[in-house]
Amino acid sequence: MSEVIATYLVHDAKGNLERKAEGIALGLTVGSWTDLPKVDQDQLKKHKGRVVHVEYLPEDEKVNRYFGEKRTKGLIKIAYPSLNFSNDIPAIITTVFGKLSLDGEIKLLDLQFSDELKRSFPGPKFGIQGIREKTGVWERPFVMSIFKGVLGRDLAFLRDQLKEQALGGVDFVKDDEILFENELTPFENRIIAGKEVLQNVYEQTGHRTLYAVNITGRTYELRDKAKRAVELGADMLLFNVFSYGLDCLQSLAEDKDIKIPIMAHPAFSGALTPSPVYGVSYELLLGKLLRYAGADFSLFPSPYGSVALKKEATIKVAKELTKEDLVKASLPVPSAGIHPGLVPLLINDFGQESVINAGGGVHGHPDGAAGGAKAFRQAVDAVLEGKTLGEAAAEKEELQKALQLWGEK
Amino acid sequence: MSEVIATYLVHDAKGNLERKAEGIALGLTVGSWTDLPKVDQDQLKKHKGRVVHVEYLPEDEKVNRYFGEKRTKGLIKIAYPSLNFSNDIPAIITTVFGKLSLDGEIKLLDLQFSDELKRSFPGPKFGIQGIREKTGVWERPFVMSIFKGVLGRDLAFLRDQLKEQALGGVDFVKDDEILFENELTPFENRIIAGKEVLQNVYEQTGHRTLYAVNITGRTYELRDKAKRAVELGADMLLFNVFSYGLDCLQSLAEDKDIKIPIMAHPAFSGALTPSPVYGVSYELLLGKLLRYAGADFSLFPSPYGSVALKKEATIKVAKELTKEDLVKASLPVPSAGIHPGLVPLLINDFGQESVINAGGGVHGHPDGAAGGAKAFRQAVDAVLEGKTLGEAAAEKEELQKALQLWGEK
Ligand SMILES: [Mg+2]
Ligand SMILES: [Mg+2]
Repeated sequence: MSEVIATYLVHDAKGNLERKAEGIALGLTVGSWTDLPKVDQDQLKKHKGRVVHVEYLPEDEKVNRYFGEKRTKGLIKIAYPSLNFSNDIPAIITTVFGKLSLDGEIKLLDLQFSDELKRSFPGPKFGIQGIREKTGVWERPFVMSIFKGVLGRDLAFLRDQLKEQALGGVDFVKDDEILFENELTPFENRIIAGKEVLQNVYEQTGHRTLYAVNITGRTYELRDKAKRAVELGADMLLFNVFSYGLDCLQSLAEDKDIKIPIMAHPAFSGALTPSPVYGVSYELLLGKLLRYAGADFSLFPSPYGSVALKKEATIKVAKELTKEDLVKASLPVPSAGIHPGLVPLLINDFGQESVINAGGGVHGHPDGAAGGAKAFRQAVDAVLEGKTLGEAAAEKEELQKALQLWGEK
Repeated sequence: MSEVIATYLVHDAKGNLERKAEGIALGLTVGSWTDLPKVDQDQLKKHKGRVVHVEYLPEDEKVNRYFGEKRTKGLIKIAYPSLNFSNDIPAIITTVFGKLSLDGEIKLLDLQFSDELKRSFPGPKFGIQGIREKTGVWERPFVMSIFKGVLGRDLAFLRDQLKEQALGGVDFVKDDEILFENELTPFENRIIAGKEVLQNVYEQTGHRTLYAVNITGRTYELRDKAKRAVELGADMLLFNVFSYGLDCLQSLAEDKDIKIPIMAHPAFSGALTPSPVYGVSYELLLGKLLRYAGADFSLFPSPYGSVALKKEATIKVAKELTKEDLVKASLPVPSAGIHPGLVPLLINDFGQESVINAGGGVHGHPDGAAGGAKAFRQAVDAVLEGKTLGEAAAEKEELQKALQLWGEK
């Protein structure tokens, strides 16, 4: 039977998790059961939620200290028949964590979709394989950099920044996610200018950099705006999906006319993920759901920066994005706090099927963004050739300067 | 100058909130400042974020115990020039709590919009005054009830339930928020059947009940679906706004063809609000933002039920929905755990400009939903006439039975 199985982490004040699980399974589906006449039970059987698993976990002393009382910690898994909902993310979210999200200390950790249900989601249009085909970059992690300090700046400023980054050999450059429609650098002009700059760099260096333009505005404008971007030759879209909704991402991803990759930015997702007792897990929100909804790239906080996730959490996100599944894989983009000295660690933690993404670690290089980008590419080459960064730096000036400035981890 | 001022609650590990505030004001706008050449400073001045207020609060011992270290608790207010963003909620959210939501223990408490910015939001199409005009109900709180146990049931079941509730004299009946498109009770058929049932009840009793039908499905279908609902004579829409996005609500609210009230359901909002250190405050999310985006009604957990908010939080939500502002007021609908014995307390806490909403407290009445609804109306009349519920119950059978079953608070 087609269904979705939700896994919840609970810190329950009452302590009987079997009863709690039963209450959820009924309360979020048919409402009541044992007091129903047999004829009603027969009719409603196929709509009834099912308790799949109840597990008591060791108590969390920190949580108990916070609440000043013993909380029973545990996992509850409930199966919801897909007969109960239409096959869209809003209906699924409302079913499994609608009213329930308001019910005390409960966090949604995972959703397992039956294959039938999975087939109703587009997944990434390109996926990792498609991005490799598009770029011709094989057998190394991608390198990406981001625009910096662009509010209030004009198109000439953006062109210069883009050119510098591209000259250094990054594969992707993304817009600043806080750059919206504005008079100085309107969306369409950014696409046109970016295209020209990157074509020039390609003719000069033979390396093609792709530019992800930030698609913003009102929900009902986005599809047409994305199509216009494609017409103008945009390479990729950056999208603040959590300021809109996952279903909106899905609509962009599954539109046949929007034939360019989509990069999901995690802006606002921190309102949902960091609590140990409430909200939604990182790996579900930034991993599985973004992938099913169609993100080709998922940015998430790296475990190395000042705005950091625990490494365990980031690895789980990356795994959800890349593991074998019915939909294509998405590229993990651990972000923030990245400099060239971290490249061996990044490749060790996230493997080749990932994007090494830097802001300050590119722009802050003594030789500017071009130097920073080169240092990253040199660091990647070193790791793949089995050299230490120190060995490579002896021959590569930009890497040497980067290691002097930021050190090596 | 047009701007939005964001208020954040922080539990900071470092302790210098002035520095933290300055870092936010720059980091989320122009990026850096003191190292910029004078000419750049002149150009970027009008884009620079401004620290409006920094306040140290008494430490939260529970939070310190949780983290096992001293956290500096405080409020930070930052003004963001609206020049930096397009006047839409996704851009505003991304600006004030995009990357920042991922940055440690920080919660978004409030957003103050300049009048110019407020004027770009529709607010409720009807508002409280408009709903009173539409219903002809004046000088009392509204009474609402909800469908129960409708998954897997057919249209005849829904018709019967609707009729019972309406016969008791409720003003509004809302769909179950987990009822999506389904073969037994499709959206359009529910509207048509509901209309017929409620017209019959009106002809029989002289009381008109309005039915809020749950609008669901894919984001880009919603507007057309809402228009179709209006064509079919739907009274009101119920909308799981947090499973979509606030901007989607706004698009429905400001569409001239969707000329019926919208009731916002808080499903999934509990993933954002309950943490003391992360996420978004109840009053901002379920109060101010829902109102600006155009919800005529906002449902939120009442302070009385098992799924309860603290009374202080619910009062703040209601205040945001109803206080004097440039947009119309929205109706507060404290929900869950409501029975007729709570009516004096509800009116005391939320006043007449609110909706008394019940599920079990209507359907669980010994005389069925019609009896439950009557008991609520009798309780409201008693309070407005200055009688105790006990006094009124001596003359009103349904109220008497309700008080016997659920008691009086
Ligand atoms: Mg289904
Ligand atoms: Mg603006």
